[in-house]
Amino acid sequence: MPQDAVDALVKVLDLEPIEVNIFRGVSPDEDRQRIFGGQVAGQALVAAARTVDDDRGVHSLHAYFLRAGDPRVPVLYEVERLRDGGSFTTRRVVAIQHGKVIFNMSASFQLPEDGWDHAAEMPVVPPPEDLPTMRERFEAAGVKMTPWMDRPRPIDIRHVEWLTPGGPRNAEPRQNVWFRADGTLPDDPILHTIVLTYASDMTLLDTSTRPHGGTWFDPTVFMASLDHAMWFHRPFRADDWLLYAQDSPNATGGRGLSRGLVFTRSGTLVATVMQEGLIRRGR
Amino acid sequence: MPQDAVDALVKVLDLEPIEVNIFRGVSPDEDRQRIFGGQVAGQALVAAARTVDDDRGVHSLHAYFLRAGDPRVPVLYEVERLRDGGSFTTRRVVAIQHGKVIFNMSASFQLPEDGWDHAAEMPVVPPPEDLPTMRERFEAAGVKMTPWMDRPRPIDIRHVEWLTPGGPRNAEPRQNVWFRADGTLPDDPILHTIVLTYASDMTLLDTSTRPHGGTWFDPTVFMASLDHAMWFHRPFRADDWLLYAQDSPNATGGRGLSRGLVFTRSGTLVATVMQEGLIRRGR
Repeated sequence: MPQDAVDALVKVLDLEPIEVNIFRGVSPDEDRQRIFGGQVAGQALVAAARTVDDDRGVHSLHAYFLRAGDPRVPVLYEVERLRDGGSFTTRRVVAIQHGKVIFNMSASFQLPEDGWDHAAEMPVVPPPEDLPTMRERFEAAGVKMTPWMDRPRPIDIRHVEWLTPGGPRNAEPRQNVWFRADGTLPDDPILHTIVLTYASDMTLLDTSTRPHGGTWFDPTVFMASLDHAMWFHRPFRADDWLLYAQDSPNATGGRGLSRGLVFTRSGTLVATVMQEGLIRRGR
Repeated sequence: MPQDAVDALVKVLDLEPIEVNIFRGVSPDEDRQRIFGGQVAGQALVAAARTVDDDRGVHSLHAYFLRAGDPRVPVLYEVERLRDGGSFTTRRVVAIQHGKVIFNMSASFQLPEDGWDHAAEMPVVPPPEDLPTMRERFEAAGVKMTPWMDRPRPIDIRHVEWLTPGGPRNAEPRQNVWFRADGTLPDDPILHTIVLTYASDMTLLDTSTRPHGGTWFDPTVFMASLDHAMWFHRPFRADDWLLYAQDSPNATGGRGLSRGLVFTRSGTLVATVMQEGLIRRGR
């Protein structure tokens, strides 16, 4: 069952080519009001990567979410070839629905080269096997599960620190989350990067609400990703456990800013993530 | 003399309108091989802001440096109006020279609103008055000053931690730098944001070379900004001292990634900065 959800995710992340620089993606057949942001970011990265030689790997992306995506109709991805350089290739992708840009991304690819090496250290946290699944967290907290919350999920998420509804209203703006694709992914390295891009839009913004008693399943809190930036450092598999070590340096003006470092289980830093999002207390 | 340099900077950051969405900027009359990245980022933000109502302030920007800017010819800035929403306005700006895109930026503006508030704390460091100027640092270290290094500078920079040439090759990937416009700026708030954008491209990438014995004035090290992202949190003046607290979570593949938090002298967090750049040891 989880493998079915993973296979379905891999399918969603496989775009239909329309023209050389134009691709079309669809949303899963789920009852969602708007497309999950990580899906649009992942599909946009697929579109960009399709226009770049395989010997160049993506090392960063920067994106803005502009409008809510409509899950009932396909998303058109249009790639602009900003630069094909000796070492670097840069692409811009816009995602279009109903004649409007819903998402704008730039991404940079590089021919592999050697260089200086250092990396942040992984925090010491309990292993994922010792932590409850999201479903177990919800059940223990007495959160009423909607059918949508209870659907098979392609990403297994294990929170190290968990805020129960009505829990403390002054938690530190940091948290650690283990996650992985809940099944086996094909070996293609770019696919693992794309699945990480997809999953990196989950849980990160929550960190900015922790000092204020907000949780994403609190219906009185409105949360939406505004931007998303990622830097990819070293190879990894997205179907092995990854630790998402997050902190939030700031919240003001209805916006929260979060930072994430992504480590393999053995402590290798594989990616850095930044995201600002709307965090509004409902009126 | 420093006030002259500040006045000259303010002039460089004032673009000529060509058409509704098109602006032209020039470079200072200096002997540079390529345009300083912060100048292009600052001018691009000017262009974006000119197309947005004054009641909306910029809260973030994401940019890629694509090609070296040519200081002998003007830069054309073309603004695309991605979205004019109820709360947010989003712009994309491309900078063009010799028919090619040298820089690609997106920026988001927001109508002011209230919200949850938290912020990272400022590290405890000596005050700027107790620290040598850059010129004094160079002189003390016996660095040979070129006329270009010795020119009047609009930004006064005081390093808290300073690596002398031939100094330790295993410094921590973090540093703190005080900086301010070395004179008085006009009161227009967006100008202070633009001057911060300009200055934020200075010193940040150096942090990623500290564990490896690289310094930006070492001619065997090639450094160039690849991207630049900023989030603006609270009002500030760029002609008052600001502390730039930097760390680098990663270096691999010839690239270094640095993070910066910018505080007012009284400890208010005003901005967060991310930058990846090329850090290549010359062959």
